[in-house]
Amino acid sequence: MTEKAGCEKKEQVSEDRIRRLVGRAREQLGLAYAPYSGFHVAAALLCMDGTIYTGCNVENASYPAGNCAERTALFKAVSEGKREFSCIVIMGGPGGRVESWCPPCGICRQALREFVRPWEFLVILAKSETEYRVFSLEELLPESFGPEALA
Amino acid sequence: MTEKAGCEKKEQVSEDRIRRLVGRAREQLGLAYAPYSGFHVAAALLCMDGTIYTGCNVENASYPAGNCAERTALFKAVSEGKREFSCIVIMGGPGGRVESWCPPCGICRQALREFVRPWEFLVILAKSETEYRVFSLEELLPESFGPEALA
Amino acid sequence: MTEKAGCEKKEQVSEDRIRRLVGRAREQLGLAYAPYSGFHVAAALLCMDGTIYTGCNVENASYPAGNCAERTALFKAVSEGKREFSCIVIMGGPGGRVESWCPPCGICRQALREFVRPWEFLVILAKSETEYRVFSLEELLPESFGPEALA
Amino acid sequence: MTEKAGCEKKEQVSEDRIRRLVGRAREQLGLAYAPYSGFHVAAALLCMDGTIYTGCNVENASYPAGNCAERTALFKAVSEGKREFSCIVIMGGPGGRVESWCPPCGICRQALREFVRPWEFLVILAKSETEYRVFSLEELLPESFGPEALA
Repeated sequence: MTEKAGCEKKEQVSEDRIRRLVGRAREQLGLAYAPYSGFHVAAALLCMDGTIYTGCNVENASYPAGNCAERTALFKAVSEGKREFSCIVIMGGPGGRVESWCPPCGICRQALREFVRPWEFLVILAKSETEYRVFSLEELLPESFGPEALA
Repeated sequence: MTEKAGCEKKEQVSEDRIRRLVGRAREQLGLAYAPYSGFHVAAALLCMDGTIYTGCNVENASYPAGNCAERTALFKAVSEGKREFSCIVIMGGPGGRVESWCPPCGICRQALREFVRPWEFLVILAKSETEYRVFSLEELLPESFGPEALA
Repeated sequence: MTEKAGCEKKEQVSEDRIRRLVGRAREQLGLAYAPYSGFHVAAALLCMDGTIYTGCNVENASYPAGNCAERTALFKAVSEGKREFSCIVIMGGPGGRVESWCPPCGICRQALREFVRPWEFLVILAKSETEYRVFSLEELLPESFGPEALA
Repeated sequence: MTEKAGCEKKEQVSEDRIRRLVGRAREQLGLAYAPYSGFHVAAALLCMDGTIYTGCNVENASYPAGNCAERTALFKAVSEGKREFSCIVIMGGPGGRVESWCPPCGICRQALREFVRPWEFLVILAKSETEYRVFSLEELLPESFGPEALA
């Protein structure tokens, strides 16, 4: 990713849109199923066509069988026929209280990687409608292992 | 599970309902994202309140980062606030052609286990609206590791 | 699996061998890395050639990125060139205290499935050298999704 | 990570050591179990105490139940009591032919993250004993979700 490409892209998601995505993510927080960690996470994924899919974490007694918020949103969207994504907003914290940034884990970065151009897709860590940080997926998962490796 | 409990339960999902779930699963087959295996799977999960959530497999270049149809449906439902489930219909095959039974993998059995009473929740393997096999989750994942193990 | 086949097979692992596997699993318990669940699990996998590989759970702050004891043992063995397995002993509990049976989760049943004939491979849940229960993998993961589904 | 910190660290793994790790990884390549992707990957993980653990990918008919080379090596090491790691060498390709760099997937970056200081632990992508690229884990998984998020 060139710094420039990242900047150009970042301008393409309006503050207004981010505000709306944060609102949707916040609503989703209350639905997280996280009895083991007590750490509630929510995500709102924006498709290129403007549709929004939300997701929360869904834990399991066998911890590795659980799923994260970001992937819940992604799998939902793909199962509804979506293949092109613009950005994802992520927020979370203990008991659903959002006090720190909640960056996506490596699994979620990898899952998102499959469907996007890493330097164009944006990952937005949010604390509120006005406090957020914007990254390209390329910044969070550089030198990624993607579909072209198997082509 | 006693054989009896299984039988009693199996009567509770009507042929009509199964037909409808199979229909929904079949529609979902076309949305599977399975460029690596070429094996398309779809699932339709029935919530206790009558709502149906569908899911397909969503593969990834890093194979372990992919997701199965059954879990896609489950994570969707949980992220929409559902916590009680009645049964799931599963079908799939190479290129989406359903010629054999497509049983759920162990991960999906485990994920479903979290939310259900294994001897009540039904897993229905379908080839068509009229050809299907009905199991309780207990039959497919006996002696399971569930939430009570960590209580 | 016919009950008979299971019984025949069960006779093939001697009490002596089980005792040794339980001993190896117990030693392994102390090495579990389980800061999140506090639930320590250990496994001892017996290869057809007599070699034993042990494993423990290895958790992660992103819970789904963790690994279970059974799969740790399996992946170790496969990475050392082993492909044929006879049985696995599993034990565990909160803080490593073994008070209840610790059945394998669905993910581990699925991982083991890849390499064995389910009605021959044995899963042994142990509390001690003399208290244990023996299952075939077929009993714990019937109607499994295995390699032949993709053939 | 400051560029400087990265450089300092990179000097700490001698060419000699890297050569030896690449040799170990190459041997491991032949043991990969990758019947579905045909893409063989191997890793060699160096512990702080000088011990080396190797790993290969171990696939499964249910793709998400498989495991990558890097995590195989890590889980092995942890199950042998190791908790401190210096660097990992990764190489792989179709049929085990190493023609391109094989970067770790996001899951593996996340799994390694648990045990290391990201700006100190090195990830070395190798084509041969003399052709390789060195990254800190921080460079490959910046803004990571680690144990401190749950503390």
